[in-house]
Amino acid sequence: MDEKLDIAIIGTGPAGISAAITAAARGKSFRLFGSREISAKLQKAHQINNYPGFYGRSGSEIAQAFMDHLTAMHIGITDERITNIYAMGSYFSLLAGQKQYDTKTVIIATGVDFGKPYEGEEHFLGRGVSYCATCDGMLYKGRDVAVIASSASEEKEAEFLASVCSHIFYIPLYKEEPAFSSADKANIEVIHDVPEKITGALKAQQLILKSGRSLDAACTFILRTSIAPATLLSGLKMDGNHIAVNRKLETNIPGCFAAGDITGTPYQYVKAAGEGNVAALSAAAYIDLHKNS
Amino acid sequence: MDEKLDIAIIGTGPAGISAAITAAARGKSFRLFGSREISAKLQKAHQINNYPGFYGRSGSEIAQAFMDHLTAMHIGITDERITNIYAMGSYFSLLAGQKQYDTKTVIIATGVDFGKPYEGEEHFLGRGVSYCATCDGMLYKGRDVAVIASSASEEKEAEFLASVCSHIFYIPLYKEEPAFSSADKANIEVIHDVPEKITGALKAQQLILKSGRSLDAACTFILRTSIAPATLLSGLKMDGNHIAVNRKLETNIPGCFAAGDITGTPYQYVKAAGEGNVAALSAAAYIDLHKNS
Repeated sequence: MDEKLDIAIIGTGPAGISAAITAAARGKSFRLFGSREISAKLQKAHQINNYPGFYGRSGSEIAQAFMDHLTAMHIGITDERITNIYAMGSYFSLLAGQKQYDTKTVIIATGVDFGKPYEGEEHFLGRGVSYCATCDGMLYKGRDVAVIASSASEEKEAEFLASVCSHIFYIPLYKEEPAFSSADKANIEVIHDVPEKITGALKAQQLILKSGRSLDAACTFILRTSIAPATLLSGLKMDGNHIAVNRKLETNIPGCFAAGDITGTPYQYVKAAGEGNVAALSAAAYIDLHKNS
Repeated sequence: MDEKLDIAIIGTGPAGISAAITAAARGKSFRLFGSREISAKLQKAHQINNYPGFYGRSGSEIAQAFMDHLTAMHIGITDERITNIYAMGSYFSLLAGQKQYDTKTVIIATGVDFGKPYEGEEHFLGRGVSYCATCDGMLYKGRDVAVIASSASEEKEAEFLASVCSHIFYIPLYKEEPAFSSADKANIEVIHDVPEKITGALKAQQLILKSGRSLDAACTFILRTSIAPATLLSGLKMDGNHIAVNRKLETNIPGCFAAGDITGTPYQYVKAAGEGNVAALSAAAYIDLHKNS
């Protein structure tokens, strides 16, 4: 019995949603990974007037139409953060915390909201820098750790760390004031500052802030909305900050496709939705072609 | 004063409509050429479930949403058939019957509904083969001509020819029975047969039908929904039956872009709409770049 997914779709913006809709329409087995709060992302968007069929609708109205579409097709969202993709030759293994998903094809539709890496981030990755609290929290039991959080949805990750680690330096990069439940916040210190670099020796030891303050942190958890593609999947060919793709949305790695903002400008909803559709059909064609291999 | 359009968009399917919406949002001057009966085209489509935001809607409901979008943005459709595009170096001249439109850029979004050329069609084009009754009818005053019509909307073209020419052989390629007004139909002969080839010497003289019947026609008017791209614009690079484009939807001719089914599979609404958006933004960027040249 083959328990591999046909398609793993990473990202719940217009590209990922469109890919999922097309994958479902084609009868492929798939998972749509990402935040269930697609409305939150979309609500930030100013009014969108160039998505054909929707005029004068707010971002949240379009988000609701997308959600209704997913619901009508019984498509669920797997609200897990994919931290690594391994190309295994004839399939891919995806890591999401402790979980592993095997899939024949991958569509990366994570958007461009991953920011530049901090100085030291790539150097210390796996040695005091982590993208996943759930995965690596236990390694730092009883130690002091830092959390750089790009959105309020990371607060529950920090609360998990607070239950395991000694002291949490929590640096929110979003506007809202963090709202930790009183039970958890005793050992969470919220710091409004800008992270600059991660320093250390063999392992990371400090997170240095713009103010000059140095935090002694055995690990810095960098919790972004998405992870830079080249970090996510080793060997993926980039074109500047974007994943290099052709008109079929194929990347340089067979079976790996990309769609949406991550493939380049223009950053437009209907362009992303169109690419999600094409990527899903390309993935379906790839699966059919490799059925017997 | 520069009376050139910024963008001429040819085709009123999802790609053309999307391009027009984006051109309008960007404040460019443009015309959207094609049939006002976009609903007719769309109504033929079976239910479309993979255009994100619209689930379980019929083709005509989506068409109505597109029309409402155009109306809300005060975008009109110029219901004229573009029969030729001439690349003039720094601009393009489009012919629609007797009218000429000059434009800085062109987006070809005509779909793939142009069929294969008949034997002899390209050979006799301009010498007894025409794509435009309004343009060339008077040249065949008092003569017998043939009309090959791909849709019922060509009946009014045949009626115009009936008022000028002697006898009209009218070959409908659509299902509905032609409904000519009694005043016009006296010299219109409806023939249910399949055109095979156009023969002649220096000029076309006969249209040969599958039944073997040979019609003595000084001109065969071939009235299709759209015209093969390479016939429309000389020198346009094709990739099989499709216009060759890159990810910016640029063709090999600077200032000429293409979008939708005509650029290749998959033939999908949201793919076409996404490409229309990208093509319009590429055209806008091209115009800005060449502003001072």
